[in-house]
Parts: sequence; C-alpha cells; structure tokens
Amino acid sequence: MKVIRDPIHDYIELDELALSLIDTPLVQRLRRIRQLGFSNLVYPGANHTRFEHSLGVYHLAISLTKQVDEHQQNELQAAALLHDVGHGPFSHATENLIERYTKKGHDEVGGLLKKGAVADVLSEHSLSPSSIAKHIKGETYPGQIINSEIDVDRMDYLVRDAHYTGVAFGLIDHVRLIHELRFNENKLVLGVGGLQAAESLLVSRFLMHPTVYFHHVSRIAESMCTHAAGYMIENEGLKPGLLLRMDDVTFMMELRNSKGFPADIAKRLDERKLFKRALYTGFESFETDILKHRKKIKRVENEIAENAGVEPEYVIVDIPEKPRIIEMKARVMINGKMTPIDKASSLVATLEKAQLDNWRIGVFTPAEYREKVGKAAREFFEVKKDVKQFKLTEI
Amino acid sequence: MKVIRDPIHDYIELDELALSLIDTPLVQRLRRIRQLGFSNLVYPGANHTRFEHSLGVYHLAISLTKQVDEHQQNELQAAALLHDVGHGPFSHATENLIERYTKKGHDEVGGLLKKGAVADVLSEHSLSPSSIAKHIKGETYPGQIINSEIDVDRMDYLVRDAHYTGVAFGLIDHVRLIHELRFNENKLVLGVGGLQAAESLLVSRFLMHPTVYFHHVSRIAESMCTHAAGYMIENEGLKPGLLLRMDDVTFMMELRNSKGFPADIAKRLDERKLFKRALYTGFESFETDILKHRKKIKRVENEIAENAGVEPEYVIVDIPEKPRIIEMKARVMINGKMTPIDKASSLVATLEKAQLDNWRIGVFTPAEYREKVGKAAREFFEVKKDVKQFKLTEI
Amino acid sequence: MKVIRDPIHDYIELDELALSLIDTPLVQRLRRIRQLGFSNLVYPGANHTRFEHSLGVYHLAISLTKQVDEHQQNELQAAALLHDVGHGPFSHATENLIERYTKKGHDEVGGLLKKGAVADVLSEHSLSPSSIAKHIKGETYPGQIINSEIDVDRMDYLVRDAHYTGVAFGLIDHVRLIHELRFNENKLVLGVGGLQAAESLLVSRFLMHPTVYFHHVSRIAESMCTHAAGYMIENEGLKPGLLLRMDDVTFMMELRNSKGFPADIAKRLDERKLFKRALYTGFESFETDILKHRKKIKRVENEIAENAGVEPEYVIVDIPEKPRIIEMKARVMINGKMTPIDKASSLVATLEKAQLDNWRIGVFTPAEYREKVGKAAREFFEVKKDVKQFKLTEI
Amino acid sequence: MKVIRDPIHDYIELDELALSLIDTPLVQRLRRIRQLGFSNLVYPGANHTRFEHSLGVYHLAISLTKQVDEHQQNELQAAALLHDVGHGPFSHATENLIERYTKKGHDEVGGLLKKGAVADVLSEHSLSPSSIAKHIKGETYPGQIINSEIDVDRMDYLVRDAHYTGVAFGLIDHVRLIHELRFNENKLVLGVGGLQAAESLLVSRFLMHPTVYFHHVSRIAESMCTHAAGYMIENEGLKPGLLLRMDDVTFMMELRNSKGFPADIAKRLDERKLFKRALYTGFESFETDILKHRKKIKRVENEIAENAGVEPEYVIVDIPEKPRIIEMKARVMINGKMTPIDKASSLVATLEKAQLDNWRIGVFTPAEYREKVGKAAREFFEVKKDVKQFKLTEI
Repeated sequence: MKVIRDPIHDYIELDELALSLIDTPLVQRLRRIRQLGFSNLVYPGANHTRFEHSLGVYHLAISLTKQVDEHQQNELQAAALLHDVGHGPFSHATENLIERYTKKGHDEVGGLLKKGAVADVLSEHSLSPSSIAKHIKGETYPGQIINSEIDVDRMDYLVRDAHYTGVAFGLIDHVRLIHELRFNENKLVLGVGGLQAAESLLVSRFLMHPTVYFHHVSRIAESMCTHAAGYMIENEGLKPGLLLRMDDVTFMMELRNSKGFPADIAKRLDERKLFKRALYTGFESFETDILKHRKKIKRVENEIAENAGVEPEYVIVDIPEKPRIIEMKARVMINGKMTPIDKASSLVATLEKAQLDNWRIGVFTPAEYREKVGKAAREFFEVKKDVKQFKLTEI
Repeated sequence: MKVIRDPIHDYIELDELALSLIDTPLVQRLRRIRQLGFSNLVYPGANHTRFEHSLGVYHLAISLTKQVDEHQQNELQAAALLHDVGHGPFSHATENLIERYTKKGHDEVGGLLKKGAVADVLSEHSLSPSSIAKHIKGETYPGQIINSEIDVDRMDYLVRDAHYTGVAFGLIDHVRLIHELRFNENKLVLGVGGLQAAESLLVSRFLMHPTVYFHHVSRIAESMCTHAAGYMIENEGLKPGLLLRMDDVTFMMELRNSKGFPADIAKRLDERKLFKRALYTGFESFETDILKHRKKIKRVENEIAENAGVEPEYVIVDIPEKPRIIEMKARVMINGKMTPIDKASSLVATLEKAQLDNWRIGVFTPAEYREKVGKAAREFFEVKKDVKQFKLTEI
Repeated sequence: MKVIRDPIHDYIELDELALSLIDTPLVQRLRRIRQLGFSNLVYPGANHTRFEHSLGVYHLAISLTKQVDEHQQNELQAAALLHDVGHGPFSHATENLIERYTKKGHDEVGGLLKKGAVADVLSEHSLSPSSIAKHIKGETYPGQIINSEIDVDRMDYLVRDAHYTGVAFGLIDHVRLIHELRFNENKLVLGVGGLQAAESLLVSRFLMHPTVYFHHVSRIAESMCTHAAGYMIENEGLKPGLLLRMDDVTFMMELRNSKGFPADIAKRLDERKLFKRALYTGFESFETDILKHRKKIKRVENEIAENAGVEPEYVIVDIPEKPRIIEMKARVMINGKMTPIDKASSLVATLEKAQLDNWRIGVFTPAEYREKVGKAAREFFEVKKDVKQFKLTEI
Repeated sequence: MKVIRDPIHDYIELDELALSLIDTPLVQRLRRIRQLGFSNLVYPGANHTRFEHSLGVYHLAISLTKQVDEHQQNELQAAALLHDVGHGPFSHATENLIERYTKKGHDEVGGLLKKGAVADVLSEHSLSPSSIAKHIKGETYPGQIINSEIDVDRMDYLVRDAHYTGVAFGLIDHVRLIHELRFNENKLVLGVGGLQAAESLLVSRFLMHPTVYFHHVSRIAESMCTHAAGYMIENEGLKPGLLLRMDDVTFMMELRNSKGFPADIAKRLDERKLFKRALYTGFESFETDILKHRKKIKRVENEIAENAGVEPEYVIVDIPEKPRIIEMKARVMINGKMTPIDKASSLVATLEKAQLDNWRIGVFTPAEYREKVGKAAREFFEVKKDVKQFKLTEI
C-alpha cells in the first residue's frame, strides 16, 4: 500500500494491483498527455495530465465500488485507472482522427488491454481485460460508475480542470454524491438527497464548456493539430494506430520533423502564431441545417478555400457535434420510484437545450486570409445578413 | 484609513466615512443579528452576522462605484454599508411581522437613516439620507449595484453563506462580474464576457435555496419564532416597531421572559425541541391553488387545529411566497443590444420555473400532534391521494 | 447515524452515543459560547462556537481511536465531544476567575460529568465519567490524543480559527498527522514521516498567538470582562460556580443588569468604548522580573491607580503567564527510538524561547486616563528609559 | 491591456510591455520548462512551468513597484517577467552544469537580454538590458523586490508549488507583505506589522525543502539527469551554452537519441527505473567535514565506484550545498530602527541552523548495486558505526 499526494483529493491510497498497473507503459504514457490539450495557451496553469486524472478517478471509484463483490471491485478499480489509455496525444486533438481511421472511440480500449504489461498484470490478478473494457464503456451496470451521466470520471475532471485553470466553476460535493449513489435493480441510482449535488455537477460541466473546453483559442489550436495529423496520415503514411503510442512530445516532434503543411503548423503552434476566426457564430445564424455539412467537411473546406483563393489546408471549418441526447440518463429515486433526472429536475431538463446557446461554428484561417475566407464562408453557408458576429469579450 | 481582515475578501479597507457609520448603534446592532437566523441548528458553522456581510457588500461596492462621480460614490458606499439596517432579529424570522405591521420591507429604511447617529454622520458628509434610502431599494439607476438581480449584496452573501455553512455551492467570480458590469443609458448592464459568471451566480443562488435558505429545520425554527413574536404583538402589547431595535439576544430574552406560548417556544428553541413536519410537499401535490390561502393563513391554521383537536397556536402553516418574477431583470450587452438575461441564456430562463421544483408547503406542529395534524391538514388542503410525502434524505 | 456539514471537515458522522451527548444541555450550552471570546471585535468573522469545535475534535478523534479497543474508543470519543464543557462565557475571559475561585482548570470536568443528562447518557452506554474526565485532562495514555502537545483539540482549533478569522496561517495536514500518530509503550508517538506536519502545526500555533489569540484588542476586551465579573463575585455575591452554567448571552445580561462598574463595562463592550493601552511592551523592557507581580496583581493595579489618581477598577494590569515548558512533550520515533520533538527538530526547540518575542505586558485604562496611568505604570515598573513603546502597526 | 486567469492570483493584467516580452522566444521557452523539474515523479500534479510562475512574479511586482518612478517601474516589471530566462531544462537539474561550464548563475542573464527579440522590445520601450539584469541579480536597491530574502519570486513560488503538489504548507499573506514592504534609505524594509507574515513565509520555505524541493526521489532523478548531461558535455561535445536554448522536451530527446550512458539514463527516467539510495543520511553522521568533498566530487564517485566494482557513471554522490548564510538579510523597522529580521525574530534566527536537520547526503546507484555501493560509500566516508540510516517514512 502506497499513499500519494494529490491536490484534489489530498491523499490517494494505491494497493498492489493499482501500483502494478501504474508501472505499465500504457499508464505511464498518460504522464505525458495533457488533460486539456492546448488549453494552456489560454490558461497557463492547465498543464495537468491524464495520469493524475486517472489516479483521481481510481480514488473516487474505490468509495463507490464498496457495494459490489471483491472481484468486481478489482475489475472496476482497474477500469477506473485504465479508462483513459485510449486517448491519443493532446487528448481531444487527435480523438476524431483515431475514431475516423480506427473506427474506435477513446473508450474502446479492449484491444489495448489484451496485450503487453497490462495484460500480464490483469492475468496475474485473474481479471478479465474484456470485462474491464466493458466497464470502461459503461456497458455493464456497475460500469455506470465509470461512464455515465454522473460518474467518477466527471466528478474528478471538473474539479481538477477548475483547480488548474483557475476558473470559478467546478465545486463538486463528492462526498454527498458518493453517499447517495447506489445500485437498484442493476442500475446506478441517485438518492433524492443528492439531487442538488447532481444539478451542481451538471451545471458546472455546462459552464466549463464555453469557458474552457470549447474556448475558441484551444479549439483553434486543436483543430490545427488535427488537420496537420490528418495531412500526415493521408499524405505521409503516418499510421493512425500509432497515435495511441505517441505522447504529446513525440507527436510534436513528428510534426516538427515533417515537411510542408504539418511542419508549418508545428512552427505556428510553437510560436503561438495561431489561425484566427474568419467566421465564429452560433447555430441560429444559419438559414440551413449547418450540421449536414459535418460528414463532408473536407469538401466544404476545399470549396471555401477555392472561392477565397487560398490553399485548401489553410481553411479549417469547425462544426462541433451537436450536444447529443445522453442515452444513459441518471436516475433519481423519488418516493420509491426511479425517475430520470431530467424529470426530477427542471434545471437539468433545460441544460441540453441551453447548451446550444454556447455552441459555436467556426471557420479558422491564418490572420492574413481572415477577410477573404470570412467572406467566402459567409457566402457558402448563406449566413443571415443581419447577424453580426458574436463577440466574446475576453477578460 | 483602516484595514480589517475578512475571510471572504481577505482585506477590506475602510475610509473615514465607513468608519464613522460603522461606529453608529444602527450598524453595531448588526453584529448581533445572525445572517442566517436559525440555520446554525442545521449548519453549526452558520453563526456569521449581518455586520460582516455589510462590510463585504461595502467592499464590493467600492469597485463598482468607480464609474460614478465622487458624491454618488459616497452615497452608494454608505448605502452598501447600511443596506441591511432594516432587518429585525434573526433576519428573516421577523421580516414578515415587520412588513405586516409596519407595512415596510426590510429595504425601506428611509426612516431609520433620518435620525440619530447615522443621520449626523451623513449630514457631516453632506449626504442625503433619502437618496441613500432610494439606492438601497434599487430605485435609482446606480442603486441597481446594490439591489437588483445581479448585485453586490448577492455576490457577497452567496459566497459568505457557503463559507460558513460549508456547502459546496457558492463559488462566485467577483472579479469578472465587476469587470463586466457597467452603466449604459442609465441601466446596469453586463458585458457578454460575464454571462457565464452571471449564470453561475444565479444557479448558486438557486441551489442554496433548498439546501440552506429553505432547509425545513431552519424554516420550522423561523416560523416558530415568527409565531411567538406575532403572539406577543397581538396579545402582550409588543410594539412591532421595537423589533428594529432588538437584536437576536434581546429578542430571545423577551420571549424567555414572557409567559405561555412565547415562553414555551423560547424553551423549545433553546432545547432544540422543534416542531415537526406534519405535512411537507410540493406545489404539485395540491388539487387547488394553494397560494390563495396565504392571505388568511391564521384562519387556515385555526381550522386545521380545530379539526385536529389541538391548541391553535401549535399549528403552523408555511406557504412560502411563490418565486416571483423579478422585475428588475439583469441585462446583457450582446452585439451592441441590451438583452434581458433570460433571453440571452436558456439556463437563466429556466431558473424561475425550476425553483418551483424545490418549493415546499409545510404544516408544522409538536411531535406528539404530528399524526392528527397531518391528517387534518391533508383533508383541509385535499392533498392528492396518491402523492406520498416527498422525503428529503438528510445526509 | 447522522451526518452533518462542517466547513472544516466537510461531513461529520455522528453515531448514537454522540447524538445523545449532543442533545444534553451541557453540550448545547456550547452553542452559545464563542470559541474566541471577543476576537470578533478585531476579526468580524470570528463568531464560531465551542459547539462546532467540539464536533470537529470528535471527528478527528474517531480516526485516531481506531488503535484502541471499542470500549476505550467510546470513552475517548465522548471525551473529545465533552472536552470543552468546563469553559465559562467568552471562553478565556472567565477562565482565570473560574480557576481562581473554584481551583479548577477548564479541563477538570469530572464534577460536571457525574450528574444530569450527560451522566445518564454515559451510564446507559456503560461509560465511566471519571475515566472520561481523566482522558480530557490527558492523564491517561490514550487521553494524550485529546490533550497533549499534538492533539486533536489543537488540530481542529488552529484550522477553524484561521477559517473564521481569515488569517493566512493554520493550514494543518490532518491526514498525515493522524496517519503518523500511534501508540508505543503506552505513549503517543509520531512517526518521523509526520515531523514536518508537526512542525507546521506548532509554528501555526506560534503565529496565531500574537495575530489572533493575544491581539491587544481582544486581550483588552477580555480583561475588562474578567474584571467586571471579578467585581461581581467580590462585591455583588455572584457565585463563581454559576459561570459554568451561563453562556455568552446570559452573562452579558447579568453585567448589563448590574450597577456601577460592571454595568459600565457592559456598556463599554456593547458600544466598543474599550480601554486603551497605557503601557504595552515586551519582557525585555523591564529591569526587574515582571512575573513576580502576577500573584498580587490587584495590589499593583491599586497602587498604580492611586499614583495616577484614578478609581482602582479602571486600571487593568495584564501580565500573561509566561509561556510554560510543556511537560507532555510530543515524541517522534527516529531510528526506533522515541525522541522528544524538540530534540528531533531545531525549529520546535526554538519555539518556546521565540514565544517570548511576542509576549506583551499591558496596562489598560480608559482613553481619558491613558497619559497619567501610563506615567504611573512606567514609574511603578521602572521601565527602562530608552525603550520606546513597541508599536504594532495594524493593517 | 489583457487579462489572463491564474490559479494563484485569480486574474493577472498584462500591459503592452508585458505582452510584447511574453511573445518573445526567450519567455515562450519557459512554457516548456517545468518549475519543479522531476518532482512530478513524486507529486503527480507538479507539472507547472516557469512561464506561469514568471507571470505570477510579474503580477506581485506591480503592487510593489508603485513606490518608484515610472521608468523604474517598467524596468522592474520587465525584470520580474524575465527573472527566470537563465534556467535550463528541468530547472535545477541543469543549473549546476550551466554554472560550472559557463561560470554563470541562473540569475546572471545580462547576455541573454542584449540580443534578439527581447532586446528589441526593451529598446522600443527605452529600457536598459543591463539595468534589468542588475535588478534580477538583486544588485540594485529596488531589485531587492525581485531577489532578496523576502521577494516576489519566493512569494509566488511557495504558494504555486503548494497548489500544484498539494502539500499543506505555503499559505502566504501576500497582501500584508506587500502592504508592509517599503523602501527606506535605499533599502527594502518590512514594517513590523508584517513580521508574522514574513516568519510564516520563511517557515513555509523551510518546510517545503525536505518535503518537496529536496525529496529524495526528485533529487535522484535530477542528479541522474545532471550526470547524463555532464557526460554528453565531456564526451559527446554538447555545448553547455546550448542548454539555455533547450526546453525539457528537446533536452530529453537529446538524451534519448544519444548512445551509452545518457541513453540509458533517458530510458530509466522514461520508465521510472530510478537509481536507489545506497547511502542517505544527515551531516551529523560523518566524522569528517563532508563538505570538503564537494569540490572534487567526480574523484569521490570514481573511487567509491572502483571500490564497489561498478562502472564509474553509475555512482552518484550528492552533497548539497550547505544552507548558506544569506547576505541580503531582510530588515524590519522596529521603533524607527532597521533591524535585521533574525534579530527581530527568534524563529527566523533559528531557521538557518534548523535547515541542517533536513539536509541529507546521498549516494545513489541502480538497485542492483545498492548493497556494494552502500558498503563502499560508508567506508569511504567513514560513516559512524552506530548511526543507522535515517529512514523517511513515506506516506
């Protein structure tokens, strides 16, 4: 048993299984992947890594797994520690590419757990990689602890991200949430005494989105990075699967050592010469259904670039996925009935819709192309005449 | 210039005007009035007073008043310091009575400022008591700093109440709010960069309501106290206006030294033998419009008591005012237009409605009468058959 | 099992024994005794009570008592909850008087535990009042948890006092201290891994002394209060034992309702017309051994008053007890040997001596007598000519 | 004017000069140098960088520079922002090497400021690189703000390092320190009201040393890194001056891409296969003056290695510099006299000596050589027979 110091949870106790898993390259690699990708360009303190986040998730999971038998406890604690090994360099910057080319989300990690040092450790402890992989996807009922609307992943990262960025959201009442979460008929259910704590968690997440997670500067840096990596996959034979072995450092080196577009992007990121917003506005600004363009975004970018007369790589169209309706709704136990949380709370019910307020469509391009790309993008999307660009005053 | 230490704002600088006002009995009395009345029965740390809150509000007001001329600055800073002098003992416990009998809300303090030591200080500084009184009511445009939807009063008390109760809500980004609040066409307007901070403040307030401000235990103690004081006004010649001179201590002594019902209530409060909930449920449980009973609540209590066969004083019906639509909506500046905040934010738009989720109607009575009073109350209000009593699991 | 919210320890679980003890008048009275007496005249936030402090001490004791058997656990937890019931109104303001007239320190509470509701609860749980009283005095070896150089009392109050006053000391690493404290040969011993945490605790306490606990304003208010109460005992037949039943409120009422000197003091405390410093300086300013005057302080006050030509009650001489050498030194386990902490740490070794730097001798009197009383006091004590009065710049 | 968010100081305002300096490669490089080198191997949260620390120092300097004229203000603020540009990769890990080979401490940055983008910015603002370099060394009297016993560097890093490691020391009362620091006769002097705050700062630093800064794990990793770099300088032609252009990433790449010893060290650091402690004990364990070995440490390592029969590179002898007597003592103004702080405070007076308690001499080697290298080292140093190895229990 070893105890380590964590700024969020004070002390985290690690048992032998945890220590063995931590010592594998799969987990050690997370030390070199920043939790928030390029957010440190906006929030200089945001240098924390997926490694410490994973320890935090493990720590929270321990309290919640007391309700299941010992074998499942071990499985779930391993799942907590391993839940992020499917992330590529700069976390979300490479997520889309990995999904596009490997057809696997960052939580589909079964393949990674079945080989190498992690597989050995799991086997020594008679734990099944595929069960753990299912827990990580939230496909089992106790796996909801790790992956559902109110899970230990979220409980950790909201507080942690607030601690390192310094933003004034993200106070979560872990003790009460954990005290009120329990299993009922194979489902994770929240006692009614935890309703306000859950509302607070979901609102924190809601507020973190525009302020941190979708801040335009990190969004621009991320999409520049994504484009550069995509370019290398398409044109320079970079194997998409390799991204899962790289960390932030080796990936940036890869970009720097390449030629042409990716090298230019690397230079721009290093020198903070980021692309700028040629168009940046909300859903309501579009006459048409903007989302239909998501599937053929490359063609859209090319067309706008052509109309504007710039190289196709230097136009980035960013249409974030529409806030999806979460399938695995949290349930609250009210008067003996399991009630979906959005029925139990008008506040939660509104969050999904409210998220649209903060969703922004962006077209990014180097400063010198800003005007002509902006014009071409507005024409292409037939942006409403009278809508001025929404301006987020930065403090 | 003197500087004092405050747990919320670190250091608060006090100039000569502030020091003179603080030294008056009107402000010193606030040292002995707890900010949260009887909440310390639930949250043992909640012993903070209106005095320190007033210093906090003054401190925040200083940053916001830099936009107006010096004379107005002084007026507004005085208003900030004096905004709570109209509170009676245990703050909200006596507020209804003062309003009922003096026809004045706790923010109608003109009368108090026109005499005594405060009047002298104001006159020495050539400040007008009636202007200050108007600022406190939020009736002037710069007074909106002190009394409106997003004001320094709220900015202070949310954080302060969270600090002393220990609840995990109430993180407010003061710096950003103050940075984004400005006057435009004689109205207090929030820059769009402060939208998330404002949403966070309003949600914090929303979450504090059921958790702290309307916790049933403090609500019960408060209404016991209100009833005892009402009894003394009606039957023992207590002058309602006198409440504004009493503090928590002298008021409790008054109760203890009385006879009959008020003395019994004092004993119960001292020994924590509080009334219990005979009925406690949400608006949706009532077939009829429950609010119509608010005006003749005494009659309702009497009838339920009679039906239950208990003394009329020992039935308390608590129908809190319905969350009212706030007239003085905060405005956000979006693309050069002043937009009401509930138009700019779907989250804020929902808060008013969502508050109803947490609103509870209560009938309180001593433990031994609980069953029969509960039955009588349910019959009287024709509570829906199938609604079980909503049970807030306390942690 | 009930759980309550505490700003310092988040949540505190209370078992049936604790709940029963809390419901006794002896413990409830602590709700109305401020932890820091009159410190709220300096730090407006310092309104916290011995009640919440006692809950905090109980909470910390639970972790430490896991090492002893269940019966002792219960005894020690009861001792933790009850350790402060021997305090009179305003804590330290009446402590000297109670000691002088009852010959009992505030931790000699055996008599209080043997009668009334507390005795009943203890008897129901087969717990011995006298054992508990011994634990509270630290006379048993597991009682060192509660009363020794590094105990749960101190671990709680340092953090709590810092939280409510807002001063920037008092960060204590509870987890590590509790992790490293253990029993060895019937002694409480600290593992070497807890040395820095212990140093930090002892330095925090050291820094809190001049800043909070011995701030001259609270010291003046306290000694005014002590003098008024002493006067009532000597001249108006107030029974000293009665102080242990009074709380802050009933005691102040007693003063207010008296006549002559105590009534004047009550008025001065209510209106913040405090005595001022006629002399205020460190030990090094005196040619002679200033401490010899402690035993006949009344005579000293009278002589100074006579020389100055003022009424004897209006001169207060404050010679605080010299920082005593603590008998029950904490021990640290180094290389298998129990080492006194001042041998293990040069920092701790110096603290005792360093405390003298901050020790102040004061002579207090109303503002209008300041000059003549100052002169008389300097003459009486033969204060060195060249020593100017040490001036603490207040921020 | 731009405002950025910082977890320590909330918001930091940056004026045009600061923004221009930040945009230079010299400052941007600090984004990629971790403040605490390899401490994140012990404290997983310690990933913060010299970049954000520099912003924090700049922020604190602004408050303190209000006392000097505008030109000096600009110089000092530039100095604050630039004070750490002389650090090499992993901060202290390469510091010794840079000093040894370039004969320049990390605060001797004059050469760096006289060329390139920084020089251009300074020249545009009519600021002198050499004046700024002197401020950074603390050689001018206003430069004491930046480099002396109580300076803004220390005020920032103590709090920042505590925030990211999570240790419970490092609460600093910035406001009071800044309020009490002023210039008197061309010296930085602290008002007596800041004495406790200064004591607290110096004790925090004292406690951070064994807990964080000299934790054996980071000390081992650092010295491995120093040895590898030294090897490359001696044997592979690495230019020492180049270290000042590298960041953590490029330096690690350099090691990884080398051969032999440095490549092995890189692998060990990446896989956390660190050297272990063959000897680890305090000064008092040595019969002879251990410090005399500092000058010819290479020879000592070789001799121990030879005696133990291992390759010379694989023995690291770590004799940290003896806590030196600080020349530039802080002064406190007491009764109108400037008094050295160690005369004004017995606590401070003891700190220098107390530091020796925590000083550890270490001999580090791979796990498999531990025993034989330990034996050889003990013989070489003639370690007292009866001294068992001091064992820091890790939590």
